[in-house]
Amino acid sequence: MINPFDDTYYMKKALQEAQEAFDKGEIPVGAVIVIKDRIIARTHNLTELLNDVTAHAEMQAITAAANFLGGKYLTNCTLYVTLEPCQMCAGALYWSQISKIVYGARDEERGCIALDTKLHPKTKMVGGILAEEASALLKRFFIEKRNLN
Amino acid sequence: MINPFDDTYYMKKALQEAQEAFDKGEIPVGAVIVIKDRIIARTHNLTELLNDVTAHAEMQAITAAANFLGGKYLTNCTLYVTLEPCQMCAGALYWSQISKIVYGARDEERGCIALDTKLHPKTKMVGGILAEEASALLKRFFIEKRNLN
Repeated sequence: MINPFDDTYYMKKALQEAQEAFDKGEIPVGAVIVIKDRIIARTHNLTELLNDVTAHAEMQAITAAANFLGGKYLTNCTLYVTLEPCQMCAGALYWSQISKIVYGARDEERGCIALDTKLHPKTKMVGGILAEEASALLKRFFIEKRNLN
Repeated sequence: MINPFDDTYYMKKALQEAQEAFDKGEIPVGAVIVIKDRIIARTHNLTELLNDVTAHAEMQAITAAANFLGGKYLTNCTLYVTLEPCQMCAGALYWSQISKIVYGARDEERGCIALDTKLHPKTKMVGGILAEEASALLKRFFIEKRNLN
């Protein structure tokens, strides 16, 4: 039987969050955290609105998921995020001991792969899920921003 | 003329914060952020109380200082923190473009130096200020914790 709740399904939810960020004038990155086929956190980047460089989608998702679970470790959880995590977010994910990270587009310049940020030994990471959609939204954001200025 | 508000002065304030963390049963790390000889953020680790791996002293200090300044960039600010920042905190400091980081004790295992976390080109980092005091407090915490379990 095909499971309809696959990585693409949850990444679509993360992309919806990224679109919400876009609509608010934020760099469009969205995230969801899932445990046992249940979404326990849905967040998007809010660095501009909150005036806070720490308000990346992943950081808020980690805090929200821990609140939901009543514990700070995200064992058996999967993070879906439309853009490869940065050093800060990968560092936070390290502390959370999350089981799996699924990202969409690569961030060749400031992503955790290029910068070789250490992940927790318990964490698996896969990428490229709906990467083109995530990347297209980011490109559209920066083109529109440039044209407005 | 000797400036009484030197790195040691502010690191003592950060150590007072670390002591507050200790008194709450938190891993004792404290931080302050200073701009033009004025402390604009005082924070300590709250990961246990908040059930949140992102609640390191530095992360809270970045958010608090940005709130105070009304902008997300910490230009001309110095962070004093009793323990060398981890990947997450160094990653957040990267985004903040903070001018200077002064830490106390080294974290040989999970600190940003050992893990080679990228700092912003605008950021200088110095360490070893009141390192023994910071380290002694951490050691006392872990010994007491072990003896209680």
